[in-house]
Amino acid sequence: MAGKARPARERMVYSAAQLVRARGVAMTGVRDVVAHADAPRGSFQHYFPGGKDQLVGEALIWSGDFAARWVASYDQTTGEPSPSGLFAHMARLWKEDLTARRYERGCPMMATAAELGGGDSPVKEHLRTAAETWERAVVDELVRMGVAPQRAPGLATLMVSALEGAIMLARVRRDVGPLDTVVTELSPLLDSCAP
Amino acid sequence: MAGKARPARERMVYSAAQLVRARGVAMTGVRDVVAHADAPRGSFQHYFPGGKDQLVGEALIWSGDFAARWVASYDQTTGEPSPSGLFAHMARLWKEDLTARRYERGCPMMATAAELGGGDSPVKEHLRTAAETWERAVVDELVRMGVAPQRAPGLATLMVSALEGAIMLARVRRDVGPLDTVVTELSPLLDSCAP
Repeated sequence: MAGKARPARERMVYSAAQLVRARGVAMTGVRDVVAHADAPRGSFQHYFPGGKDQLVGEALIWSGDFAARWVASYDQTTGEPSPSGLFAHMARLWKEDLTARRYERGCPMMATAAELGGGDSPVKEHLRTAAETWERAVVDELVRMGVAPQRAPGLATLMVSALEGAIMLARVRRDVGPLDTVVTELSPLLDSCAP
Repeated sequence: MAGKARPARERMVYSAAQLVRARGVAMTGVRDVVAHADAPRGSFQHYFPGGKDQLVGEALIWSGDFAARWVASYDQTTGEPSPSGLFAHMARLWKEDLTARRYERGCPMMATAAELGGGDSPVKEHLRTAAETWERAVVDELVRMGVAPQRAPGLATLMVSALEGAIMLARVRRDVGPLDTVVTELSPLLDSCAP
């Protein structure tokens, strides 16, 4: 999405997600987003009458949908799906992204939660929706593999939690080791929950 | 530490940690810290000639030491220490803090990693030290319980990762459920690693 193949509005949402996950919400200015998206000056107000809150909210929804699509794409990568394979699939995206971008960008949900989770920002509702969308996609995949429906939500929360924390530690250490570690440590537990 | 019992310099470091974990680094102004700490106006430059970077760096070191002390305090809470008991002890502090403060404050390491992890801020070195201090304290406790020294670092990374992610999800949902979930889900795995 670096080029102009997509409409300016979509590019701005994408760029907002990228800047928020690189430097946080407060340091992501509307002008930075317009420049990053290579969007027409003055188009921001037209597309986002709700201002920066609307833009960041949509960036979060985009992020949740992206994460959910990645989770759902696991099915196409293997003929023998397993919970540990799904978790490795989730971690792989981050290992590749962190390595390729030299740890420049983390998770936009984490950045938003850290900065706005304690206040009354209207963005929080979108953050909640994005996280739910992601977790629900994990639950759906686990159930599809045969994990009991009453068991899947707890495992999904564990997987998302461990992944988020490992992303944080990987950026802190500039080393993807923590992502490998959580996958290795959790794999037996995860697979013990599938038939 | 709300009062003036501690020296102004210490109060400013504490206040910086509290504000960073409530609203992030960018939105934590030096003036806010001085006011929160009830410190003399103009004292900031005297105590922190390195400016905001020095203050935030020291706040992170304070946070890492605080987290490590909390981990080490587990021994005094039980006559029968176990890895799952330690993890529950770590989560309990957060459950109490999030509930008492109505999810106002998260983890200062997470906020700093999210905002500054991708750039070249000098604060990153302190962030790394703080996280290492915390993880090392967990490793030390696990080894003291009889977990194999070569096994403990991986478990510590898993515990810290799952806890950090669960703190994030708890703030997103305004519900400490994710903290209970990761403790419940990981307990059997953790205890299987101790004699």
